[in-house]
Amino acid sequence: MIRAGVVGATGYAGAELVRILSGHPEVKLNMTTSRQYAGKPFADIFPSMKGVVDLTCADYDGNQVAEKTDVVFMALPHKLPMNFVPELLKKGKKIIDLSADFRFSNVSAYEAAYQPHAAKDLLKESVYGLCEVFRDRIRTAKLIGNPGCYPTSVILPLYPLIQNGFVDAASIIADSKSGVSGAGRSLSQTSHYCEATESFKAYKVAGHRHQPEMNEILSLAAGAPVDITFVPHLLPMSRGMESTIYANLKKSVTYQDIYDCLAEFYAGCPFIRITDNGRPPDTAHVRGTNFCDIGFVLEKGKNRVILMAVIDNLVKGAAGQAVQNMNLMMGLSESAGLNAVPYPI
Amino acid sequence: MIRAGVVGATGYAGAELVRILSGHPEVKLNMTTSRQYAGKPFADIFPSMKGVVDLTCADYDGNQVAEKTDVVFMALPHKLPMNFVPELLKKGKKIIDLSADFRFSNVSAYEAAYQPHAAKDLLKESVYGLCEVFRDRIRTAKLIGNPGCYPTSVILPLYPLIQNGFVDAASIIADSKSGVSGAGRSLSQTSHYCEATESFKAYKVAGHRHQPEMNEILSLAAGAPVDITFVPHLLPMSRGMESTIYANLKKSVTYQDIYDCLAEFYAGCPFIRITDNGRPPDTAHVRGTNFCDIGFVLEKGKNRVILMAVIDNLVKGAAGQAVQNMNLMMGLSESAGLNAVPYPI
Amino acid sequence: MIRAGVVGATGYAGAELVRILSGHPEVKLNMTTSRQYAGKPFADIFPSMKGVVDLTCADYDGNQVAEKTDVVFMALPHKLPMNFVPELLKKGKKIIDLSADFRFSNVSAYEAAYQPHAAKDLLKESVYGLCEVFRDRIRTAKLIGNPGCYPTSVILPLYPLIQNGFVDAASIIADSKSGVSGAGRSLSQTSHYCEATESFKAYKVAGHRHQPEMNEILSLAAGAPVDITFVPHLLPMSRGMESTIYANLKKSVTYQDIYDCLAEFYAGCPFIRITDNGRPPDTAHVRGTNFCDIGFVLEKGKNRVILMAVIDNLVKGAAGQAVQNMNLMMGLSESAGLNAVPYPI
Amino acid sequence: MIRAGVVGATGYAGAELVRILSGHPEVKLNMTTSRQYAGKPFADIFPSMKGVVDLTCADYDGNQVAEKTDVVFMALPHKLPMNFVPELLKKGKKIIDLSADFRFSNVSAYEAAYQPHAAKDLLKESVYGLCEVFRDRIRTAKLIGNPGCYPTSVILPLYPLIQNGFVDAASIIADSKSGVSGAGRSLSQTSHYCEATESFKAYKVAGHRHQPEMNEILSLAAGAPVDITFVPHLLPMSRGMESTIYANLKKSVTYQDIYDCLAEFYAGCPFIRITDNGRPPDTAHVRGTNFCDIGFVLEKGKNRVILMAVIDNLVKGAAGQAVQNMNLMMGLSESAGLNAVPYPI
Repeated sequence: MIRAGVVGATGYAGAELVRILSGHPEVKLNMTTSRQYAGKPFADIFPSMKGVVDLTCADYDGNQVAEKTDVVFMALPHKLPMNFVPELLKKGKKIIDLSADFRFSNVSAYEAAYQPHAAKDLLKESVYGLCEVFRDRIRTAKLIGNPGCYPTSVILPLYPLIQNGFVDAASIIADSKSGVSGAGRSLSQTSHYCEATESFKAYKVAGHRHQPEMNEILSLAAGAPVDITFVPHLLPMSRGMESTIYANLKKSVTYQDIYDCLAEFYAGCPFIRITDNGRPPDTAHVRGTNFCDIGFVLEKGKNRVILMAVIDNLVKGAAGQAVQNMNLMMGLSESAGLNAVPYPI
Repeated sequence: MIRAGVVGATGYAGAELVRILSGHPEVKLNMTTSRQYAGKPFADIFPSMKGVVDLTCADYDGNQVAEKTDVVFMALPHKLPMNFVPELLKKGKKIIDLSADFRFSNVSAYEAAYQPHAAKDLLKESVYGLCEVFRDRIRTAKLIGNPGCYPTSVILPLYPLIQNGFVDAASIIADSKSGVSGAGRSLSQTSHYCEATESFKAYKVAGHRHQPEMNEILSLAAGAPVDITFVPHLLPMSRGMESTIYANLKKSVTYQDIYDCLAEFYAGCPFIRITDNGRPPDTAHVRGTNFCDIGFVLEKGKNRVILMAVIDNLVKGAAGQAVQNMNLMMGLSESAGLNAVPYPI
Repeated sequence: MIRAGVVGATGYAGAELVRILSGHPEVKLNMTTSRQYAGKPFADIFPSMKGVVDLTCADYDGNQVAEKTDVVFMALPHKLPMNFVPELLKKGKKIIDLSADFRFSNVSAYEAAYQPHAAKDLLKESVYGLCEVFRDRIRTAKLIGNPGCYPTSVILPLYPLIQNGFVDAASIIADSKSGVSGAGRSLSQTSHYCEATESFKAYKVAGHRHQPEMNEILSLAAGAPVDITFVPHLLPMSRGMESTIYANLKKSVTYQDIYDCLAEFYAGCPFIRITDNGRPPDTAHVRGTNFCDIGFVLEKGKNRVILMAVIDNLVKGAAGQAVQNMNLMMGLSESAGLNAVPYPI
Repeated sequence: MIRAGVVGATGYAGAELVRILSGHPEVKLNMTTSRQYAGKPFADIFPSMKGVVDLTCADYDGNQVAEKTDVVFMALPHKLPMNFVPELLKKGKKIIDLSADFRFSNVSAYEAAYQPHAAKDLLKESVYGLCEVFRDRIRTAKLIGNPGCYPTSVILPLYPLIQNGFVDAASIIADSKSGVSGAGRSLSQTSHYCEATESFKAYKVAGHRHQPEMNEILSLAAGAPVDITFVPHLLPMSRGMESTIYANLKKSVTYQDIYDCLAEFYAGCPFIRITDNGRPPDTAHVRGTNFCDIGFVLEKGKNRVILMAVIDNLVKGAAGQAVQNMNLMMGLSESAGLNAVPYPI
C-alpha cells in the first residue's frame, strides 16, 4: 500500500482528498494535517465521515510527514507550499501540490500574479498535472503543480484544437461559472447562504489569477504566446463548474472534424466524455466525479466554434485530478480510486 | 383609473403582471383570463395573493375583454396573440403583447424563427417595447411587442455603444444565463426541482429564437445588418438573468468614455443603473425589481469591452417592462407602479 | 411625516426596516446607524438599493439620533439596546426594540436566558409588540419589545385557542423551521453556502432562548404557567419560517369550532390569513410580506389539533411587525407601508 | 456473480439502484426495464452514467426478467408489483419490492390506505425489510417489502425504546421533512423548481399512507396497537429526510440509559450512527450514503425524549436499504456495495 498524507486536510479540496484517498484500494491515508484543527478528529470537522475515516488532524511537521508518507498532497493556500516542498522533496517524497506555487514554468508570470517565489529552482522540475495532456511527463515527475479548476475546464476542450491548428488562439474567450465551493471553506460575505442563493454575477473580470496559468499552457499548444479573455462567474450552487468557450476557426472544418480531433486526442482517457450531437454538458452529470464532459457547436456562417466543458471543481478541478496524478506517478491504473458510479441526480 | 386586463394570467409572466397591476396606483385590474383555470379564483392558483387580489379567471372572450378594459396585456405563448390582437385593436384597445408575435418588423425573420404570421399587416404598426430606446414611439403606439428577456439584457448595454460607433457589431458575443422561471410554469423535466438544482448548462446554443430578435434591433443601432453569437444557459435559481457580452472596440476609448456614452444615453431613465468602477452587477440586486444594472470592464491591451447586465427576467424581462410600456402609452409617470423599494436580500 | 431612525441598519432585520420605512408613505427615514459601516453609504452595503435609498450609515450617537427622529427602531443584538434605550426614552422618543431586551415582563426569566438586565425598571413599561394580541396596549406604548420570529409563528396560532380553553397548554409541542437569514448576516460555518444548502437539521433542541419568551406570553393566555416543548430547525433557504404545533384538545370541538375561534379572534386583522379546509400554509406564500398564514387539522380519534403557521422571519418575524407596531403607536393605519402585493413565486 | 435486475429503472429509486448495483462487487446488473423509455440506453436518461452503465431499458417481460436474473428489484408505483411478483416468485426469483405492496402483514390496513390487494396470500411470506430490526427473517426471505422512507426514519430511532419499555407509544408524534426527490421523477407543480425552492410546507397532515405502515411495525415493538401522529413536510432540497420525534417516557431514565438502549440494539449495525452528546444529526452528513444518523435530547422536567433521525431518502430510505436486504438474503456482507466514503460537503 502506498502511504499518503494530506497537508491542509480541512479545506474543501483537502477534505475531498481525504474522501477519495480513504476509499482508494491501493492507498493507506495515514496523515492529515490542519493548523486550525490540530488535535481534533477529522470526523469532528466533517461528521459525514464519522465511523468511516478515523484520523486525527496534526499540526504540520515536515519530519513527521516525511516519516509517515510516500506521497504528499499539499492542499494549502499558495505561498505556503513553496516553503514546505523543498524539504519533503529532499527526503524523497513525491508531491502533488494543489496550490498555484508549482504550476508555472515562467517564474515572472507566477510572480506577477502571486508573489515572489521562494523555490524558483523547483519550477523547472515540477510538471503541470493536467493528466490527459502531460501524462508521460507526469509518470516520472516528483513534483506536480496540480492545475487550477478554471484552467482544467478551459484547457481540456481547447488544447487539441489549438495544437492541431483548428482555432485561432488570439480569438479565444472563455466565460466560466463556478459553484461556491470554489471559493473554499473560509467564511466570506460572498459565500454566506443568503447572499449566494438566488444570485449570479461575474467577478475578477479579466483579472483572475487563473488567466496567466491558462495562457502559459495554451501557448504551449499554440507554439506561440496566447492571451485569452477570461471572465469567471459565481453560481448559486455548491459544486460544479462550466466553461463556455468561443474561438474562431482557422480553417474550414465540419462538426465531425472537430469531434474526431477531440476524440483522437482523448482516446483512452477514462475521464473525458464527449457528448453526442453537440449536446451541452451539464454540471449535474459530473457532480462528485472526475469526469470532464465536453460538448461543442459549430456556428454556421460565422466560422466559430463554441466549446462547453463541465467538471466538478473539487474533483477533476482539484482532489480527483490530484489523485489521478498520483496514480500516474505511482504506476497505478489511472482511474484507481476514482471510478465510483456517478449519482443519477 | 385605467381599466386593465391580463390575458393568460396564470403563467409566471401573467401572474407577475397581476401583482404589479394590482398595486398600480392608477390602474384598476378588472379582468384576468386563463384557459386552464377558467372559473377559479386567481388566488387559488397563487395563494400568496389570498385576500389581496380578488379576481376570478375567465375564459378568453374578445368581446368581454374589450368591454371591461382600456388596455390589454397578452401573456400567452406566441401564435395565440396574433389571432386575438386584430379584433381588440379594432375595438380601440391598447395592447401590450408579451409574446414574440409583434416584436419583429421583418416578417420573414419572424417566420423563420416561429411560424407563418396571421397578422402581418400589424407588424408595421407595432412598436418594439424597449422603453429606454424607443420611448417616443411607444408613447403613441397602440400595439407593443414587449421585448424578450434575453434581448432586454443584451440590447440595453449594447445599443448606445453600437449607435455611437464604439464597438464592432460583427464581433459581439453574448453569453447569457437565466433562472428557471424563464422557462415558464409549464412542467418539464428541465424545470423539475431535482434536475434543476445544482445544475448549470447551456441550451439552444447559437439557436435560440431570441437571437434574430436581438439581431433586428442591434442592426437598427448599427445601421447595418448585425448577427451576434448568442448562447443561453440555465441557472439553478428561480428569478434573474445575467448577460456577459464581449465586443471589440472600433476606436481607442477609455473607461470614462464608455461610462459617459452609457450615462448620457440613459440619462433620466429611472430603471437603468450603471455600477461604479466596473463592479459586476448581481442578479440578486435586481430581484423583484424593474432595474437593469449594467457594469463593464475594458480589457487592457485587447481593445475589448466586456459588458455585464442583470435583470429580473419576470420584471424588466417581462411584466415590469410591459407595465412601463403601458405607463408611457397612457401618459403616466414611467415608473408608476414599479418603484417598490428593492429587498436587501 | 414621522421621522424615523434605524439603529443597526446593516444587519438583515435592520436592512429590511430600511426597505419598508423607505417606502412608507407617512415616514421619512432620516437616520441609519452601523458601527461596522459608519461613514459608508447604505447602498454600498446593499446595492439593490442604489439610487433608491440615499442614506449614509453613521456611528451611534444618542443625541444625534434623538435630534433627528421621532421614533427609533433598535435592530441590535440583545444587551446593547438596554444601554441605549433609557436615554432615548427620556428624550421623548418612541422606541421599537427588535432584540429580546424588552420582551419580558419577568426579569428573572430574561436574566436566566440572556444576562443581567441593566434597565429593569423599563420592563414594566415596555409592551410585547405582538400586534394582533396586544393592540390596545401598543397604541399607547412608548417602548415596544418586538417579538422574536419563532414566538410570533408559535403564539399567533395558539393564543386564541388557549385563551378560549380549547387546548391543554401543558401538551404543546412546537416543531419550528427557519430560513438561514434568521441567523443573521454575521458569518458562520452554519451559514456558509456549501454547508447550508442541501442540509436540514435541528439545533438548540429544547434549549432555544425563544422558548421562555413563548412561555411567558402563552402563560398569559392560559392564566397559568405554561412550559412548552420547542425544537427549532434550520432550512436550506433564505427567508421563511414554519411552525407545526401539536396540542391536545381540552374539549370536544369540530373543525368549524376551531376555525371560528381563530377567525373571531383575528377579525379585522389585516395580516392574519386562515387557510381554507386545513390547507397547510407555505412559506413561499408569505415571502416578503407581513402575513402570518395559519392552517390546522383536527386529528380524528386522537383529540389533537395540529396547527401550522408560516411567516417571513424578516418581515412579520422582525421588521414588518416592528413597522406594524409603529403604525399602531403613531395612530396610522395598521398596514401603512406594509401592503405591497405579494409575489406569485 | 449474482445476476440482478431493476424493474422500473428510470424513476429516482430505480436509477439509484442502478447506481449502487453497477458498483456492487458481487453483482452483475444485467436487466433494466422501463415502460416509458423502453429501447433507450439507460445513460440517455441519466447522462451522468454515460460510459459507466451500459444497459438498455427493456419493456417488462416476466419471462425475460426471470431468465436473466437471480434477484429482482421492483421499483414501480404500488399496485403494479402485486401483479408481477407471484410469477417471478414461482420461477424461484428472490424479490425486493420497493413499493408498499408487500410491506403490510395486515391486508386490511393495506387496503384501507391503498387499494384491493391482488396477491394477499403472499403477505404472510413477505418480510418487512428494515434490516436492523428484522435481519434474521430477512436472511431467509424470498420476498421483501422494502420500507418506506418516512417509516425508516421514524421506526429506527423508536423501535429499541418502545421494545424496552422506555417510551409511551401512545404519546408519539413524528414531525418529518423530506427532500423533493421523495416525490419522485414524475412532473408536478409541487416539484417545479420555482415552486419548490424557497418553500417549506406540511402536506397530507395526519393522512399520509406511511402512517399505517409505521403503526404496524411500532405495534410489534410495543406488543399492542400503536397509532402515532405523523406530519410530513416538503423541504427545498433534493435528497435528504429528517424526522424529529417526540415521546413521553414511561420510566425515569438518564441520557446514558437511552444511549445504551440504542447502542446495544444497534451494536454491529454498520449503517446506524448515534451522534455524540445529543448533537442533532444533519441530512447533509448522510447524503448519498446508507447511514441513518440518530441523535436525541432528554427534556428535563418534562419526562420527554426528543429523537432525531436523518437518512438519504433515496438510499437508506429506498435503494440502499434494498441492496442491504439483498446482501442479507444472498449471504453477502451486509454492507457490500454500500460503503463508499461519504462526501465532506
